[in-house]
Amino acid sequence: MKPVPFTQVTFTDQFWLPRQVTNREVTIPAQHEVMRRTGRVGMWNWALKPNEFNPPHRFWDSDVGKWVEAASYSLATHYDAELDGQIDAIANHISRAQLADGYFNSHYQNVKPHLRWSNLRDDHELYCAGHLIEAAVAHHAATGKRTLLNAMLRYADHIDRKFGRGAGQWRGYCGHPEIELALIRLGQHVGEPRYLKLAQYFVDERGQLPHYYDFEARRRGHDPRDYWAKTYEYVQAHKPVRQQTEVTGHAVRGVYLYSAMADLALLNGDAELRQTCQTLWQHLMSKRMYATAGIGTSAHNEGYTSDYDLPDDTAYAETCAAIGLIFWAQRMFHLTRDGQYTDIIEKALYNGFLSGISLDGTEYFYENPLASRGPHRRQAWFDCACCPPNIARLLASLGGYVYSVDESSDVWVHLYAQNTAHFQVAGVELGLAQRTDYPWDGAMTLTVQPAHALRFALYLRIPAWCDLANADAVRVIINQTEVEHVPSNIHKGYLRIDREWQTGDTVALRLAMPVQHIHAHPHARQMLGRAALQRGPVIYAFEQVDHPEISAAKAGNANAPLMLDRISLGDVALQPEYRPDWLGGVTVLRGDGWLADDADWGAALYRSAPAQRRKIALTAVPYCVWANRAQGEMRVWMRL
Amino acid sequence: MKPVPFTQVTFTDQFWLPRQVTNREVTIPAQHEVMRRTGRVGMWNWALKPNEFNPPHRFWDSDVGKWVEAASYSLATHYDAELDGQIDAIANHISRAQLADGYFNSHYQNVKPHLRWSNLRDDHELYCAGHLIEAAVAHHAATGKRTLLNAMLRYADHIDRKFGRGAGQWRGYCGHPEIELALIRLGQHVGEPRYLKLAQYFVDERGQLPHYYDFEARRRGHDPRDYWAKTYEYVQAHKPVRQQTEVTGHAVRGVYLYSAMADLALLNGDAELRQTCQTLWQHLMSKRMYATAGIGTSAHNEGYTSDYDLPDDTAYAETCAAIGLIFWAQRMFHLTRDGQYTDIIEKALYNGFLSGISLDGTEYFYENPLASRGPHRRQAWFDCACCPPNIARLLASLGGYVYSVDESSDVWVHLYAQNTAHFQVAGVELGLAQRTDYPWDGAMTLTVQPAHALRFALYLRIPAWCDLANADAVRVIINQTEVEHVPSNIHKGYLRIDREWQTGDTVALRLAMPVQHIHAHPHARQMLGRAALQRGPVIYAFEQVDHPEISAAKAGNANAPLMLDRISLGDVALQPEYRPDWLGGVTVLRGDGWLADDADWGAALYRSAPAQRRKIALTAVPYCVWANRAQGEMRVWMRL
Repeated sequence: MKPVPFTQVTFTDQFWLPRQVTNREVTIPAQHEVMRRTGRVGMWNWALKPNEFNPPHRFWDSDVGKWVEAASYSLATHYDAELDGQIDAIANHISRAQLADGYFNSHYQNVKPHLRWSNLRDDHELYCAGHLIEAAVAHHAATGKRTLLNAMLRYADHIDRKFGRGAGQWRGYCGHPEIELALIRLGQHVGEPRYLKLAQYFVDERGQLPHYYDFEARRRGHDPRDYWAKTYEYVQAHKPVRQQTEVTGHAVRGVYLYSAMADLALLNGDAELRQTCQTLWQHLMSKRMYATAGIGTSAHNEGYTSDYDLPDDTAYAETCAAIGLIFWAQRMFHLTRDGQYTDIIEKALYNGFLSGISLDGTEYFYENPLASRGPHRRQAWFDCACCPPNIARLLASLGGYVYSVDESSDVWVHLYAQNTAHFQVAGVELGLAQRTDYPWDGAMTLTVQPAHALRFALYLRIPAWCDLANADAVRVIINQTEVEHVPSNIHKGYLRIDREWQTGDTVALRLAMPVQHIHAHPHARQMLGRAALQRGPVIYAFEQVDHPEISAAKAGNANAPLMLDRISLGDVALQPEYRPDWLGGVTVLRGDGWLADDADWGAALYRSAPAQRRKIALTAVPYCVWANRAQGEMRVWMRL
Repeated sequence: MKPVPFTQVTFTDQFWLPRQVTNREVTIPAQHEVMRRTGRVGMWNWALKPNEFNPPHRFWDSDVGKWVEAASYSLATHYDAELDGQIDAIANHISRAQLADGYFNSHYQNVKPHLRWSNLRDDHELYCAGHLIEAAVAHHAATGKRTLLNAMLRYADHIDRKFGRGAGQWRGYCGHPEIELALIRLGQHVGEPRYLKLAQYFVDERGQLPHYYDFEARRRGHDPRDYWAKTYEYVQAHKPVRQQTEVTGHAVRGVYLYSAMADLALLNGDAELRQTCQTLWQHLMSKRMYATAGIGTSAHNEGYTSDYDLPDDTAYAETCAAIGLIFWAQRMFHLTRDGQYTDIIEKALYNGFLSGISLDGTEYFYENPLASRGPHRRQAWFDCACCPPNIARLLASLGGYVYSVDESSDVWVHLYAQNTAHFQVAGVELGLAQRTDYPWDGAMTLTVQPAHALRFALYLRIPAWCDLANADAVRVIINQTEVEHVPSNIHKGYLRIDREWQTGDTVALRLAMPVQHIHAHPHARQMLGRAALQRGPVIYAFEQVDHPEISAAKAGNANAPLMLDRISLGDVALQPEYRPDWLGGVTVLRGDGWLADDADWGAALYRSAPAQRRKIALTAVPYCVWANRAQGEMRVWMRL
């Protein structure tokens, strides 16, 4: 069971295609430029002129790695000679700067060469290595060029010699998981089981006692109890991973680790590791995830706090964490064939991931709160710039999340978005074409074009947001013939259609897409008495710019926070309205709501009669495109 | 127009009398003991053995002053030889320790004698002097003893020589107002206009340019811009007081200053200062006061933030600020004869002031939030112990807030609480006796007993919480004869009854006391969609201890914050029920409310159906007695 590669899936839609074009034409070039300007690329001669430039930061290699990965994906689908040259330059730089023993880290080599591997807990050396390894695999796959791949094979061998349980080896592992994912990918790419074993070691050594980070801290002359993050939960090393039952600590680190665990569970048929992943997933889903699929409550640890603690205005919900959640979810699907995981891929893609980048592809959110007093705006770059290239690599490879083919040569359709795809099934060339206005419309027609008649099962994901209690929620029509009893034939979120497919057969999916009020578990007190609006996979947000009453109220009371709270939704659902002229073309929600009015209130601060409610016109826009217009308040969870 | 002194009013009720007995028998002795143990009293020989004790803190003299004031009030109504001796010892100590030039400050004399008056902005010297002066006046009034009074007259003369606009004088004023109030009181007590003029100077010099605190900081070698509080709003010295239109900064400092301003406005017939006071009052009432009459939103500055910013769980609402608000309100009433001010005295007394002390008189709140996750509990003492003796002095002198007599010899009744009073009106001895179960019942019968038949107007306060739109809200019966058209005869909150009173005449007041839902102005977003319960003057609170469902929910989810938010009030009003066995005898509110139930919810964090509501039995207790039972959550503003 494998995803159909992104190179074989071409979006032709109005939602993702423009994002991919912007990513290719604006974002990737702009990121190269800012990386050049800041010294991340093109200046790997710091050692020669140490005083002329800021020395490379310990995160920088990972930024470069993610960018090379994104750029390679872009090259793979749209050749661009300038980009090709930029990647080559980086590959050559790295290859030349790499030490004879295979080590490469621009920060350590230039800033503290004598301290290599001395602080795995904090210093991201293996994390940077992992991103460069992923870049090398992507670059080789896209271009067949081996410069970076060979360098990274040397580096992986170096790491393999250095770390492990053998005599003379160090029993370390990285504070920021990533190397595990990368080694699995490299091992699969080049067919070298040694890298998979090393990944397995890194996963299973994590959190073992005596604790490596205690040992490592003492070796540096530090007291382990002085660890700034206070607890190894921050790095998911508070106990061996197979004993972990709750998602803890830094959200991005967590989902990268869990992704590697899911990979290994699948590769090795490791039931225990699969169960651990499922337990962790269930904990996250049931107690710690925002409605946008944002994860990580607090800026303090860039991570989780406690169960059901999901404040909206201070939500951290880092863009990278949504991306890592997508990685994890895809692996969990392939491990379990359960639509609950692909549902979360969809939820994150349309909400907490996509909010991370502006419509014009030039600015980014690091944090994705679900409410804002106004100041929260996307920025062109960050000192710690993990999110921008992470967004770029996911957008450039997004086609890889649409289909999978399993070992029975059955075809799974996970995402609906207009596209064409071509891949082999049981040795037969298969073309697929989706025609749809998803996510604005729930109708999708899939044309199946095998080279010749071919029997296989087609699995269609029926999203969790479909209310199957409603008879019209899902209709499926095969070549004009309606499929009966659809709901009772949905298993783990997929409808199975097993038949001999003729070229030109069509499957029409009709998902009812009402505007839904989403409610949170009663333990999640910050959402009590509130609802979020969702239509299809899209979560909506209310912005000040669409509500002049709010601006008027703030004008007379400049410090007033979150005046959008004066609005309540009322009982009448808002109605969808497609606006091609807004925000790149989006379906907005419009209708009447209520404003707690102060017109008759007078000077008193308290009174025994509640505020009068005045009807006002409401507009909600997709959360993912908020903050692309005038600065102002935003809120997802509205009072009822 | 003056209040009838507390010495002439004796509570005989079940609400205040037990508090006063506890204050006299438990609180005042316990405070003396802790002041002795901590070195605040009895150890004024630090200078002799500097290493043996903690040096006196700059606030300590004010603690001692407030305690002496409280103890003197207690002596005035209930002689106690031991207490008398304790006060004498303090008076003698101070008198002996006072310097030849009249200066006295235990902190400066022992810790930094060379720096006297060098930091008026921060160091509370004049504030401490003020509290000692108030103590001296109270002590002299209670006992006729002059030791402390003479010492403080010398000190006041010293201050009068030091500060002012004359040649060689310093144009300073205290960062924490209090000296102004004290000098006015001293001046009136001994008939010395010089002290009133000095108070007037301190008030009017405040905030003038060039700014004294700038000058003073530079004299200390500091840059005024390095002021830790960032703005002179913190000390209400950001502009001259007559130009101030908004209450700002540290809440206690503010109300002490405004009290002195109101005093001066009345004494001097100063219309401008009166208007300033009214403007400031109106700002506070309409935009910055909690429903409990607590004031000061933030712990950061122990004061105000911005208009309508009234978070409940982080409310500062210092007990001293409620006390200062009562001081200011009483003065505003005498300045304007407007019941809106005495209404606030009542509101503060029954809520945000009284919450400051435990039922057993041994523990105190410094902060009085309107919601708590559980940890907020009263404490036996504080390093900065301003609140405990402040509570003691107000409780001991509470009788002084019940009645006033004006220059026409008319009698004003402000508070309802069973009591007897005896005072002169137009040279005639007048006895008054209130019979009432207020605040649990709105019926009050006042028996008027002049020594002989006497014509005067009796003004009865009709509380603002009475809903005059309701025909039964207020009934008044004089000697069995019902007064007609009561609502239309209420002027500025008082009903005037002008007649010749015979001994034994009775006035029966019947105030309907329904349970009211109180709502906040729509700009106050933290209260949107919420209501507080009030009955008569009493604001109610919900405690975890009365709601096992909340404890059960927290038991399964230990970190869950403010689970009381799962409760909503519903439409049915709770019913009052007097419980003599609870919390010293209180009327609780009981009835059904709704709990957002998770029994059917399942494992999902979000879903499209709202939580089911389950009926649960609710109990609310008066806010002022919360946290006298098992530790747990508390909340005033409940979801509707």
